[in-house]
Amino acid sequence: MTDHNMKISYPSSEKIYLHGERYPELRVGMRQINLTPTVTKDANGEKHFSENAPVVVYDTSGPYSDPKVEIDLKKGLPRLREAWIKERGGVEQLPEFSSAYCRERLADASLDHLRFAHHHLPLRALPGAKITQMALAKQGIVTPEMEYVAIRENMNCRELGIDTHITPEFVRDEVAAGRAVIPANINHPEAEPMIIGRNFLVKINTNIGNSATTSTIEEEVEKAVWSCKWGGDTLMDLSTGDNIHETREWIVRNCPVPVGTVPMYQAMEKVHGVAKDLTWELFRDTLVEQCEQGVDYFTIHCGIRRKNIHLSQGRMTGMVSRGGSIIAEWCLQNDRESFLYEHFDDICDLCAQYDVAISLGDGLRPGSIYDANDAAQFAELDTMGELVTRAWAKGVQAFIEGPGHVPMHKIPENMSRQIEKCHEAPFYTLGPLVTDIAPGYDHITSAIGASIIGALGTAMLCYVTPKEHLALPGREDVRTGVVTYKIAAHAADLAKGHPGAQVRDNALSKARYEFRWKDQFNLSLDPELALKYYKDAHFENGEFCTMCGPNFCAMRISHRLKDCTE
Amino acid sequence: MTDHNMKISYPSSEKIYLHGERYPELRVGMRQINLTPTVTKDANGEKHFSENAPVVVYDTSGPYSDPKVEIDLKKGLPRLREAWIKERGGVEQLPEFSSAYCRERLADASLDHLRFAHHHLPLRALPGAKITQMALAKQGIVTPEMEYVAIRENMNCRELGIDTHITPEFVRDEVAAGRAVIPANINHPEAEPMIIGRNFLVKINTNIGNSATTSTIEEEVEKAVWSCKWGGDTLMDLSTGDNIHETREWIVRNCPVPVGTVPMYQAMEKVHGVAKDLTWELFRDTLVEQCEQGVDYFTIHCGIRRKNIHLSQGRMTGMVSRGGSIIAEWCLQNDRESFLYEHFDDICDLCAQYDVAISLGDGLRPGSIYDANDAAQFAELDTMGELVTRAWAKGVQAFIEGPGHVPMHKIPENMSRQIEKCHEAPFYTLGPLVTDIAPGYDHITSAIGASIIGALGTAMLCYVTPKEHLALPGREDVRTGVVTYKIAAHAADLAKGHPGAQVRDNALSKARYEFRWKDQFNLSLDPELALKYYKDAHFENGEFCTMCGPNFCAMRISHRLKDCTE
Repeated sequence: MTDHNMKISYPSSEKIYLHGERYPELRVGMRQINLTPTVTKDANGEKHFSENAPVVVYDTSGPYSDPKVEIDLKKGLPRLREAWIKERGGVEQLPEFSSAYCRERLADASLDHLRFAHHHLPLRALPGAKITQMALAKQGIVTPEMEYVAIRENMNCRELGIDTHITPEFVRDEVAAGRAVIPANINHPEAEPMIIGRNFLVKINTNIGNSATTSTIEEEVEKAVWSCKWGGDTLMDLSTGDNIHETREWIVRNCPVPVGTVPMYQAMEKVHGVAKDLTWELFRDTLVEQCEQGVDYFTIHCGIRRKNIHLSQGRMTGMVSRGGSIIAEWCLQNDRESFLYEHFDDICDLCAQYDVAISLGDGLRPGSIYDANDAAQFAELDTMGELVTRAWAKGVQAFIEGPGHVPMHKIPENMSRQIEKCHEAPFYTLGPLVTDIAPGYDHITSAIGASIIGALGTAMLCYVTPKEHLALPGREDVRTGVVTYKIAAHAADLAKGHPGAQVRDNALSKARYEFRWKDQFNLSLDPELALKYYKDAHFENGEFCTMCGPNFCAMRISHRLKDCTE
Repeated sequence: MTDHNMKISYPSSEKIYLHGERYPELRVGMRQINLTPTVTKDANGEKHFSENAPVVVYDTSGPYSDPKVEIDLKKGLPRLREAWIKERGGVEQLPEFSSAYCRERLADASLDHLRFAHHHLPLRALPGAKITQMALAKQGIVTPEMEYVAIRENMNCRELGIDTHITPEFVRDEVAAGRAVIPANINHPEAEPMIIGRNFLVKINTNIGNSATTSTIEEEVEKAVWSCKWGGDTLMDLSTGDNIHETREWIVRNCPVPVGTVPMYQAMEKVHGVAKDLTWELFRDTLVEQCEQGVDYFTIHCGIRRKNIHLSQGRMTGMVSRGGSIIAEWCLQNDRESFLYEHFDDICDLCAQYDVAISLGDGLRPGSIYDANDAAQFAELDTMGELVTRAWAKGVQAFIEGPGHVPMHKIPENMSRQIEKCHEAPFYTLGPLVTDIAPGYDHITSAIGASIIGALGTAMLCYVTPKEHLALPGREDVRTGVVTYKIAAHAADLAKGHPGAQVRDNALSKARYEFRWKDQFNLSLDPELALKYYKDAHFENGEFCTMCGPNFCAMRISHRLKDCTE
């Protein structure tokens, strides 16, 4: 792995940092896109220049896009939050990893060549200490993480004179109320704080992960960085093959955004794919293992009850959640209530010790238009509403996963019902896909639903790539999926009136109207692709393109009109 | 041009025809997708087969997908509607073409090598005869075109036991009221009747056309057929280069869907790109030329008034309509009211003689999020509302073009205001794009807006390709644009509850759940792409894919669950 290749650069952009007020040592990284001036000619043909202010945009690429930071994947990223966590106390460094499985892997010399070398011993809350962002928020404490996300959400709004409701106190209120989550495992200090809640920017999650034998550790780390480059706000590692433990260590240590997992996948590997053999003890050890590695949120399908499984029997597509179908199979084969449901309080106690957020997985989400909004889906939503209050009682941050496949007219009920039944906990949906008939284009079928549900209040959108339903996504699929979901999230931000959301649209449109092509591309979500299309079309000069030719360019004529009427 | 290459085939599909009742000779072409049976194994391991009914889908590919029809581009398509038009009377065949320009081109021997050889002399209404679909509908006549579209919209709903509101009488009512348009120039008898209205399937338009020197006649005809293959419902020829007249003749004679144009583009070529030199007489001759060639609808920017042009001056992106900016420039340079507005009644008189529909172009549509729903846009909408009633008074079918660039929360006002101000005339929008920041992905930014406005009642969506704002679309861009817009239109059909719209979704999802991969692909909007992704991923067997591997396939587990609970 040649680390210098992992560096990220964006055209005409520089990394800038805004500082905190409560916590002056905070440095919140952003990307500033510098623009060229507008050039006009006066009646004598003389050129006049007027500056265009740079545009500051939300940046998920972390230290990778800072030329001053040296990247060494073997050492991992700088530990941004380590001092904050230690200074506020309530945690202890353990003398060894608590998970039996983790210790076993560390002791296995045959894995040495795979291993991330610079292990840090794990932190854990002291007995009785309440160390989660939610617990601190409830105590009235504004943490550095809270001020960090307030600055990050606002970007340079203040400088631009744009009003914003987002203050560090507001962040605290939202986290305390459970309306927002800051996924921030104390063992993943490398991650830059970000917030998931409907009164903030809509976020997107990207999934990576190998299955069976398809990819290597290097490829997965590279995909993680690649996803951050295009704008992924969180990253789920859904690996199901060999060496999940080691792969995850490399990813977490080098990932500047929160990392989520579905711990059931690894638990299943430990029982060689036989669901019946799963036990709470084995599952618990997997949670401990991942808590101490630094996973920031767990998708756990605790909402599936033994008594509700039969509700999926009349469906067109049964159950389409991997984790959900595994625990359902366990329930039926053992003829018992789900151990995930029965041990939910134990799970919360564990998560509270590391500040791992729980993403309540929707095992009964609809996998087809036909199954949308059915009894199975809504029964699970009711259970999740019960569980989320139990998580909050223990100070554990939580959010709720949602569908799936839903036709447009049935989307609003998903949102309003989720807000009501789940007491305003953040909603995190997979699309939804608004039709089933376009495999190969499901990034699009789902972006339509994602935009709509995002505008209605969904806090985070799980991306879908063109390969959904067909294969594992490759590098270009990840790029397409992330950019498509940035579009959906941004469209929702505009619709919700997020402070400053329209600044980038305005700057790009102004550049377009003034034929500042490079500025237009540099301001776009995918500058490289826009530039490529432009170059491929062999532009003859800067003032018209192959679309309209020289005589038919509306914008060109429109400029002349301006001269006429002035 | 090797004509056999123009034939269209879809996997596991056959061309079927449904017949009329009022007009038993009607043969309405559709595509029937044949499916494989569902295979189950009983306790003894014996296989049982149960049939899956074929799925009938709307088909825009015309004779190209009928293996029994010989395609000869030099002769043009069979003249499906010719007998209907002649039998109902009110028309005469002219002894020569009426347009001076057309006669000039026909007399020019240097163009012989470019010319479509099998000219038919044009038809025109007899003096005083009312021959448009709207005029006939107002007289209470159900034309063959009306029964044709009723059958086409319903597909095999009756056979499936699905209720439908769409009868031939309903079609007549909608056309008479102006709520729907059947674009059907009497000189384009090759086109299969289709309907544009908010109580019918949402339609999509695709644009083709060369600019300057970028493409040949062959390429344009091939693009037209290509667009029909993927599902384009109408086709706009937006050529602006040389030989527009000859190119259009080839396209119209070989196009199974209605063809639209922006006559201003050709008029501008005739004045060598100098807007000031345009005259009503020259424009009128261009309309006559195109009416007699068989263009089914004209986009004309009659809604731009001299007095409203200044309203666009405070905009971020001025005017972004080519036709609109040209007439605005003419108004300002000549300091006169637009001749398109002043001669609107003359335009209608002309269109009524050939049954050409008028698409009232929105020259003041917003070209950026910033400009959406502004005074300029809505002033023009008011004018279009006035004009559409004048068109209807003359029996001319008409629809209204809409934006453009609109953030999600401002979309509903566009639809409700259009319905009110334009008296329920069909709305035909370009997207709208819900953000400006993703050049290279504007098929997606616009499909989001198109789905939303389609579900609210927009009757036709003008496609946008990935090259929007950057370059002219190539072949693959057309495919991507059309499929993306089929998704948007279909999502809207599902949301509106169009009779039978969900049949295809259900069949595809059932195939997906039963691992009938080929059926899943054959039912999809782009079977070739889905199959390609599938093959590229090297499936090891039919029951799991590279996404989840053998132990983690939710659908596979879900099938086992079914066994558990039964």
